[in-house]
Amino acid sequence: MLQQSFVSFSEHHKQILENQLKESISKLNAPPAVKESMLYSLEAGGKRIRPMLLFATLAAFGEDTVKGLWTAAAIEMVHTYSLIHDDLPSMDDDDLRRGKPTNHKIFGEAFAILAGDALLTYSFQSVAETPDEFASAEIKLSLIKELSKASGAEGMVGGQVADINGEGQQLALEDLEYIHLHKTGKLLECSVVSGAILAQAGQETVQALSRFAYHLGLAFQIRDDILDLEGTEDKIGKPIGSDESKNKSTYPSLLTMEGAKEALDSHIKAAKEKLRETGLNTELLEAITDLIASRDH
Amino acid sequence: MLQQSFVSFSEHHKQILENQLKESISKLNAPPAVKESMLYSLEAGGKRIRPMLLFATLAAFGEDTVKGLWTAAAIEMVHTYSLIHDDLPSMDDDDLRRGKPTNHKIFGEAFAILAGDALLTYSFQSVAETPDEFASAEIKLSLIKELSKASGAEGMVGGQVADINGEGQQLALEDLEYIHLHKTGKLLECSVVSGAILAQAGQETVQALSRFAYHLGLAFQIRDDILDLEGTEDKIGKPIGSDESKNKSTYPSLLTMEGAKEALDSHIKAAKEKLRETGLNTELLEAITDLIASRDH
Repeated sequence: MLQQSFVSFSEHHKQILENQLKESISKLNAPPAVKESMLYSLEAGGKRIRPMLLFATLAAFGEDTVKGLWTAAAIEMVHTYSLIHDDLPSMDDDDLRRGKPTNHKIFGEAFAILAGDALLTYSFQSVAETPDEFASAEIKLSLIKELSKASGAEGMVGGQVADINGEGQQLALEDLEYIHLHKTGKLLECSVVSGAILAQAGQETVQALSRFAYHLGLAFQIRDDILDLEGTEDKIGKPIGSDESKNKSTYPSLLTMEGAKEALDSHIKAAKEKLRETGLNTELLEAITDLIASRDH
Repeated sequence: MLQQSFVSFSEHHKQILENQLKESISKLNAPPAVKESMLYSLEAGGKRIRPMLLFATLAAFGEDTVKGLWTAAAIEMVHTYSLIHDDLPSMDDDDLRRGKPTNHKIFGEAFAILAGDALLTYSFQSVAETPDEFASAEIKLSLIKELSKASGAEGMVGGQVADINGEGQQLALEDLEYIHLHKTGKLLECSVVSGAILAQAGQETVQALSRFAYHLGLAFQIRDDILDLEGTEDKIGKPIGSDESKNKSTYPSLLTMEGAKEALDSHIKAAKEKLRETGLNTELLEAITDLIASRDH
């Protein structure tokens, strides 16, 4: 019953998000080369977990989810730009992403860098273009500040820098968590907190939702590390064991596979506890949490 | 007399801008590697023409220039990120910028890309952090929209994409102007228009200032092309004739050197005419215009 309602919620919102992304690019008065490169990666799919978190948070407050469409699109643009830049030869040097050639394999390095730059830039415009009936100027500014902090040197980019610095080293668990909380966690948290900002939530509720996202982010990454060893190439869209072959520290390598699975369970439990603390109607957020705990790609 | 007052205006504002940039980076809670890379390029100097345009526009309205400090820093961050990415091996592949090694020569390609990403991201936060006493939330949102449009696919990035697409081709003057109006012109225009937005100027005045910036931007680029052929390596900080050796279309190559100099004069004249139309006290903006017409680096 719960699963069924999440599936239809998710399908509906994935559709409106993808329409929004497509229209946003199509209306740009810009050289076709950059629009194609931007759209290629935006349309490469994925689970759209960040937008779903934002929509599900709005739903938890009983708010109309359409309010969050421009910010959800913005966050997906930031996520997509980060994948394009991460895949570059001077970064992770990946040829495949979700089973498709990475952006620079199709458009070349220069246009991949520029498409990433353009997506990042456009994301802030997308938030700013939220219609006034859905958010005041003050709310839009708060959303922009959150997005900037979550994406920049203090957030996602900082995590990526720490990740590169840690390559080839045996990291302490603390360092590994710094990397993941920044590289992946901050943007997941931003998705949830943005929903709360749009719903004009009180500070305590925002705090509980932030902690929910903290645990969810770590669970997400632990599951990722487990999948890298136990998944199938067909499903995860990249070669199995690619972290190991790149000599990256992972949860299973630091905690053993059993320890990693225990840590996953414990973060999922803590995430759900934080949801209960909010007193909101968090069924959809719980469903996303379960999805992250058990996903096979 | 006029020159003297511009020199002291310029020195004072360069100082407060550079303090602002330094403090903005220093307060970031982020890995030192990314902060160092961001600061290295921000401190590589340059004439700070964009911030000066913004401050001089505020001065033309009789406004306190400090209002524009956060937006001026933001525009300089965007300009700096664009230089870091433009210099990358997969783009222009330049080893020197203003006589110093380019960012990726010091920090490596990955950190150069990430420092650029972090600067771009931080620029929007900088605008959003303008103290409320200097700008309302509505004004800050307008500034963010301007900055995003000027920097992204419809502006600077679009110009860079068109520039790469045009490499090795004999361009028509129209195509060359598209490139420069976007790659350089949009951010110059954004600097002037941002000053006008902060001063809450009327639409007609904004329009005249936009046209001023249009002519200024073209003059700027024509002077750049002339310097690439007639300047000295010592002053411009890169090898002479580097456009020619890269087979790039330039104003002198399309119009002859004499024709390029005539076009420069004509844009400078038109720029000043637009300033007069505003009826504002535009002495400082005129001084910047003269500086651009006659600069030797």
